[in-house]
Amino acid sequence: MNRPRLVEVRENILKQNDLLARSLRTRFHEAGVLVVSFVSSPGSGKTTMLEKILARVGEKVRVAALVGDLATENDAARLMRTAPQTKQITTGTVCHLDAHMVESALEDWELNKVDVLFIENVGNLVCPSSYDLGEDLRFVLLSATEGEDKPLKYPTIFNTADAAIITKMDLAGAAEFDLELAHRNIQSVRPGMRVFEVSAKTGKGIDELSSFIQSQRLVSQSATAV
Amino acid sequence: MNRPRLVEVRENILKQNDLLARSLRTRFHEAGVLVVSFVSSPGSGKTTMLEKILARVGEKVRVAALVGDLATENDAARLMRTAPQTKQITTGTVCHLDAHMVESALEDWELNKVDVLFIENVGNLVCPSSYDLGEDLRFVLLSATEGEDKPLKYPTIFNTADAAIITKMDLAGAAEFDLELAHRNIQSVRPGMRVFEVSAKTGKGIDELSSFIQSQRLVSQSATAV
Repeated sequence: MNRPRLVEVRENILKQNDLLARSLRTRFHEAGVLVVSFVSSPGSGKTTMLEKILARVGEKVRVAALVGDLATENDAARLMRTAPQTKQITTGTVCHLDAHMVESALEDWELNKVDVLFIENVGNLVCPSSYDLGEDLRFVLLSATEGEDKPLKYPTIFNTADAAIITKMDLAGAAEFDLELAHRNIQSVRPGMRVFEVSAKTGKGIDELSSFIQSQRLVSQSATAV
Repeated sequence: MNRPRLVEVRENILKQNDLLARSLRTRFHEAGVLVVSFVSSPGSGKTTMLEKILARVGEKVRVAALVGDLATENDAARLMRTAPQTKQITTGTVCHLDAHMVESALEDWELNKVDVLFIENVGNLVCPSSYDLGEDLRFVLLSATEGEDKPLKYPTIFNTADAAIITKMDLAGAAEFDLELAHRNIQSVRPGMRVFEVSAKTGKGIDELSSFIQSQRLVSQSATAV
């Protein structure tokens, strides 16, 4: 197995991705756009939660969304109801978004008409780890039905995220989810990580998360101003 | 982005994996071992279901298990209670098992003392698609809490599997899972695919699935005999 050569080629690609992500980040800051991304397993409830968050954050500022999937445009169609400025990125067999895909998707958008850009990555707890998309803030999601052990099993993705969200809290009881253990596991992998508990169904935590995202916008703006 | 070179290197690796998987398959058949693998999202309930299946199939024949994860040996520790011949393969940052990892894990095992070998892949609906592990039968799992759209969003993994299992059926009601739509989506991606409905918690479907796996053992043996 010719692994070393693959590793070398991958490192090269990652380096190019990082350079592009850095230039995207500068563009976002210059245009005053806060960029927030979401990674998780397939089916952990990213899109349903995003619908709620987009609606809430969208009451105050101009929002837009990019959604990654291997196939279908279903998620973009759903998000478009609350955020007309939404675009689907279909990746084919690629298990993550990269900075180049984000750049291409933005081509015909006027960034200075957007305040917060939400990026929903492909459902995958491994591949997205290594790809910087130029975002300011990356959330990793873990649903209450997936089990408490995911942070221990996928430590890298928790390490590359800035905050965690436990979704589907309405199903925690039925799934016998041990919330305390989940928090302990997250903290053991990433001590001090901020964790939100959310249910898109009951609305639990949506306000708190939306306010947090808004507050980051101010942080990011003052950082740029300095 | 130097994609063509990456594609070429990946194709090379896949070709080498296929050759090794083919020789593994021959070894398994010669030793009379049926090999069954399971792929799914993280947290779809593979290990809990496998515990039940191993116990049931293990009443009649000699079972063994290989379990893939990026990190931790938790799953092997769980399965070892029902199948003492269990080994964890920790893949680090690699998002799937490959034939080489399977071959290495088997090094100190006597294959002719095993009747059915179960392989639990890393939780991932993308990467495992392309890697033949020398198995006779590949199951793709979809939990009732993940949503009905997963077959449409991850068509390749459904296409490389021989049968599907809908897990966590006990949570279908609470999650408002549309079972009929899930079946329709599976059939639209892979017409004629056999689908099992299972709950490791209530025991639903465990007997049927265990009997099916046993029956495949006879099919595989008669194929080798011919």
